[in-house]
Amino acid sequence: MLSNSKGLRLDPNRLLRESGGRVDREGLQPLVGQSILHPRQFNRRSVIAMAQLAALLETSNVEIDKPLDGKIAITAFFEASTRTRLSFESAMLRLDGKILSVPDGQVTGIAKGESLADIGEMFNTYGDVVIIRHPDTDSLERIGRNLQRPLINAGNGSGHHPSQALIDWYALLKWRPELCRPDCPEDRRVHIGIIGTPGSMRAVKSFLRLSLMFTGAVSKITVISELADPVGLELTEPIEESPIPIVIVNDVQKVLPELDVVYVNSIAFLGDDYRKMDSRYKLQRSSDLKPGSAIMHPLARNDELSVDLDESDHNLYFAQAAGAVYIRQALLTTVLDRLHKVVLLDRQELIGRIES
Amino acid sequence: MLSNSKGLRLDPNRLLRESGGRVDREGLQPLVGQSILHPRQFNRRSVIAMAQLAALLETSNVEIDKPLDGKIAITAFFEASTRTRLSFESAMLRLDGKILSVPDGQVTGIAKGESLADIGEMFNTYGDVVIIRHPDTDSLERIGRNLQRPLINAGNGSGHHPSQALIDWYALLKWRPELCRPDCPEDRRVHIGIIGTPGSMRAVKSFLRLSLMFTGAVSKITVISELADPVGLELTEPIEESPIPIVIVNDVQKVLPELDVVYVNSIAFLGDDYRKMDSRYKLQRSSDLKPGSAIMHPLARNDELSVDLDESDHNLYFAQAAGAVYIRQALLTTVLDRLHKVVLLDRQELIGRIES
Amino acid sequence: MLSNSKGLRLDPNRLLRESGGRVDREGLQPLVGQSILHPRQFNRRSVIAMAQLAALLETSNVEIDKPLDGKIAITAFFEASTRTRLSFESAMLRLDGKILSVPDGQVTGIAKGESLADIGEMFNTYGDVVIIRHPDTDSLERIGRNLQRPLINAGNGSGHHPSQALIDWYALLKWRPELCRPDCPEDRRVHIGIIGTPGSMRAVKSFLRLSLMFTGAVSKITVISELADPVGLELTEPIEESPIPIVIVNDVQKVLPELDVVYVNSIAFLGDDYRKMDSRYKLQRSSDLKPGSAIMHPLARNDELSVDLDESDHNLYFAQAAGAVYIRQALLTTVLDRLHKVVLLDRQELIGRIES
Repeated sequence: MLSNSKGLRLDPNRLLRESGGRVDREGLQPLVGQSILHPRQFNRRSVIAMAQLAALLETSNVEIDKPLDGKIAITAFFEASTRTRLSFESAMLRLDGKILSVPDGQVTGIAKGESLADIGEMFNTYGDVVIIRHPDTDSLERIGRNLQRPLINAGNGSGHHPSQALIDWYALLKWRPELCRPDCPEDRRVHIGIIGTPGSMRAVKSFLRLSLMFTGAVSKITVISELADPVGLELTEPIEESPIPIVIVNDVQKVLPELDVVYVNSIAFLGDDYRKMDSRYKLQRSSDLKPGSAIMHPLARNDELSVDLDESDHNLYFAQAAGAVYIRQALLTTVLDRLHKVVLLDRQELIGRIES
Repeated sequence: MLSNSKGLRLDPNRLLRESGGRVDREGLQPLVGQSILHPRQFNRRSVIAMAQLAALLETSNVEIDKPLDGKIAITAFFEASTRTRLSFESAMLRLDGKILSVPDGQVTGIAKGESLADIGEMFNTYGDVVIIRHPDTDSLERIGRNLQRPLINAGNGSGHHPSQALIDWYALLKWRPELCRPDCPEDRRVHIGIIGTPGSMRAVKSFLRLSLMFTGAVSKITVISELADPVGLELTEPIEESPIPIVIVNDVQKVLPELDVVYVNSIAFLGDDYRKMDSRYKLQRSSDLKPGSAIMHPLARNDELSVDLDESDHNLYFAQAAGAVYIRQALLTTVLDRLHKVVLLDRQELIGRIES
Repeated sequence: MLSNSKGLRLDPNRLLRESGGRVDREGLQPLVGQSILHPRQFNRRSVIAMAQLAALLETSNVEIDKPLDGKIAITAFFEASTRTRLSFESAMLRLDGKILSVPDGQVTGIAKGESLADIGEMFNTYGDVVIIRHPDTDSLERIGRNLQRPLINAGNGSGHHPSQALIDWYALLKWRPELCRPDCPEDRRVHIGIIGTPGSMRAVKSFLRLSLMFTGAVSKITVISELADPVGLELTEPIEESPIPIVIVNDVQKVLPELDVVYVNSIAFLGDDYRKMDSRYKLQRSSDLKPGSAIMHPLARNDELSVDLDESDHNLYFAQAAGAVYIRQALLTTVLDRLHKVVLLDRQELIGRIES
C-alpha cells in the first residue's frame, strides 16, 4: 500500500499487534446503524476499536470482499471541502459502495433554496447514508428532522468534526500503540499541545474532546491561545470530569520544548466567519521542538505550518492525512452495518499477516 | 424499504394487486429505446404499465439482478436541480448503472460555450442515455440534432417535464389503485384541482396532459389561476379531445372543499423568467380541505405549502417524492432496453410476494 | 458500436488488419505505470501501439473483462473542460474503473486554497491515477512534488495535451492505416497543414510534436499563422532532428488546395490569457479544400470551423472526437498496468473478429 511521501511513516500492523491481532467488534456495536454527529458518542474503547478496524482495512486487500456493495452515500457539502469530500468518497468506492455527490450545495443552489428538513426527506429514498458539511451549527438538527438514514457530520460550522478527531487519534495510536493502554508506561505518555481556540474551531474541539478520554495515556493537555477563554462552554464539563490536567498559556515558544504532540490548525470558525491563526504561532524547522515530538494538522494548511518541516521526523501530519480514507472506511462499514463483511478477512488472514 | 417520514404512506403491492400481480410489458414496448421528450408519447396504458414496473422495482431487491449493468447515463444539467439530478443518478446506481455527471453546465461553462448540437455529438460515445435539463424550450431539438442515444427531458424551460408527471401519477395510482380502471367506481373517481398556470409551468402542464388520459377515473379538472387563459395553446387540442370536463376558476378558497386532489407548484416559468405563486394560493392546515383529499407538489416548495400540513393525512407530496427514484428506474430500464433483466423477478418472486 | 453521426466514419478493424491483428504490447511497455506529461515520452512505435490497443478496445465488448476493476481515477480539473473530463471519466467507467471527480477546482476552492504540492500528497491515498488540467504550465511539476501515483496531463496552460495528440493520430491511423508504415506508399503520404500557433497552443503543439515522428508517412508540414515565429522555442530541436520538411506561411487560401490534412483549433493560450483564431482563417464548405482531404479539430469549436462542413467527407473531426474515449481507455489501461487483462480478448477473439 502507498502511504505518505514524506515525514513519519506509520505501520498499521503495530497497532494490530498491540491488540493481539484482534478488532474489538463489541466496542463498535453501539455505533452500528447510528448517525455520527458528535464526539460524545464515542468513548476510549470505541475510538480504539475504530482505529483497529481502520488498521485492518489499511493492511487488507478489501476490494475483493466488497463490504459496501449496493450501498449509496450522499455527500452533501453545503460548504466546499474537496479534501473531506473526496476522502469520504474514496472510502466508499474502495469498499465498492457508490456515491451521489453534491460538491457545493451553496453555489449550485440545492433544489432552489428548499429547507434542510425537505432535503433530508428527499434523501430518504436516494441513499443509505448522508455525509453533510454545512456552515451552520444547527444544520444537523434541521436536516435530521425528516431524515431516516444515518447522518455523518463532516463539519457543522463551529460545532464538531468527529471523523477528523478519529483520524487524529488513529495517527496517534499507530505512532505510539501503547497509548491504547489505560496504564501506558509513564515515559510513553504524551503531553499534547493544542495551538488554537477549541471553543470556536471544530477540528481542535473534537480532537480535544477525544483526547480527554485517554486517561493514563495523555499526561497533560496545554492549550495555547491568545484568548482569555479559548476552550468555551461546551467543553467545561468534559474537562472537569477528566482527570487529565489542562492548562492554558499564550506563549507558544515557551511551552513548545515540553510538548510531545503539537496540534495546529489554520482556521478558526467564529460564528459564520473564519479567522486565520496569528503568524506568531507559526511552526517551522527553526522552532524549538522537543526531539521526537510529532506535529499534527488536520489540513489544509496556510502559513502556520512551514513546508520546511515536511522532510523532518516531526511531520506526523502527512501520515495523519494518509489515514483519513481508512478511518472513513471503518466508520462507514460500522454505520452501514457491514462489519460482518470483514469478519472472514479478520479470522483467516489477519493472524498470519501479523505473525509474518 | 424506507419510505417517506411523514404523511400518507403508500404500499406498491396494492397497485400490483390491482393488475393481478402482472406488469404490462406490452404497454411499455413503444417506449423501448426511445427518447422521452414529451408526455404525448404516453397513453393511459403505458402510464399504468410504467407505474406497475416502478411498483415491482420498489418491492424488489433489484440490486442482485443488476439490470443496468454496464450502462452509463449522462446527467447534463444546464440548470441546477439537485433534486431531479440526484433522483435520476440514484435510480441508475441502484440498478448498477453508472453516471457521468454535469451538475451545472451553465456555471462551469460546458466545453467553452460550444453549441448544444456539438455537445450532443460528443455524448454519442460517452454514454448510453442522456438526461438533460435546460432553461430553453428548444434545447431538446438542438441537442438532438447529432445525438444518437436516447434523450430524457428532465425539464426544458416552460416546456415539459414528463418523468415528473409519471411520478405524480405513480403516487395517485398507488394511493387509489382503482384509478387504473377505465370504469372506476363513481365514488372513487377524483376531482383534481391544479393551482397554477399549466400554460407556462412545465410540471403542471405535463401533469395535466397525463391526467386528461384518465377518462372514467378523473371526474373533473379544475384549474385555479388568476390569469385569463392559464392553460395555453398547446393543451387546447388535448383538452378538446378528452371527455373530462375542465373548468377555470380564480378563487382557491371556494373550490378547495370540492377537490379530491390538490396539485400545487411553487414556480412559474414565463419565458426565461421565474415567478413565484401568489401568497393568496397558500395551503395550510387551516385551509378548508375536503376530508380524505390529497395534496400533491413536485417540490421543492416555497411558502405556498405550509409545513404544518406535513404531519397530516392530506400530505401525499412526501410519498409522491418518495416514488421518484422508482419511476426513474422504470423509465431508464425501459429506455435502455433492459426490461428482460427484471423478468426473472417478475415470474418467480412476484406472485409469492403479492399473496403473502 | 455507435460512432459519429456525420462526416467520415472510421473502422478500427482496418487499423488492426494493418498490423496483422496484433497489438504491439512491447511498444507500450515503457509507458506502463508511468506519468504521461509530455509527448516526448512517446515515439512512433508507442503511438501506433496505443492506437492498436484503442482499436482493439473499440471493437471489443470489454465490459465483461473489467480491466480497470478496483482502480480509482481522480479527475482534478482546475480549469473547466467538460469534454476532456467526461471523456476520461467515461473511459474509466467503461472499463469498470471508478471516479473521484473535481469538476472545477478553481471555482469550488479546492481545499481552501492549499498548494498543489499538498493536494498531490492528499491524492496519494485517495486514488490510483490523477488526471489534471490546470491553467499554469508549471502545475505538473508542483503537484508532482509529493504525488506517488501516475499523473496524466490533460492540458497545462500553454504547455501540452499529450492524450489529445494521441486521439488525433488515432483518427489519422484509422483513416489511412498505411501511415503506420515507415515506407508508406508515396501517394498515400500526407501533407499536414496546421492553422494556428503551435508555440502557444497546447493541442496543436502536441499534435505537431507527434507528427514529426512519422517520417516516411508525413511528406510535409505547413504551419499557417500570422505570427513571425508561430512554432516557438521548445519545438526547435525536434523540428531540426526530423527529416520532415516544415514551412511557415500566412495565407490560408493559397496553401489550402495542397493539404491532405488540415488541423485547426479555436483557442490560443498566451500565458494565462486566451485568444481566438482570426476570422480570416475560417474553414467552410466554400473553402478551396483538396478533394479527399480531411479536416481535424480538437474541439470545442467556435466560428473558425463552419457547421456547413459537418455533412461533408472533409469532416474527420467528428470521427476524431469519437475516438477520444478509446484512446483514453488504452492510456489508462497502460498507465494502471492492466494490459494483461485484455490479453484474453486479444488472443482468442481478435483473429476471428478480424477475419470475419
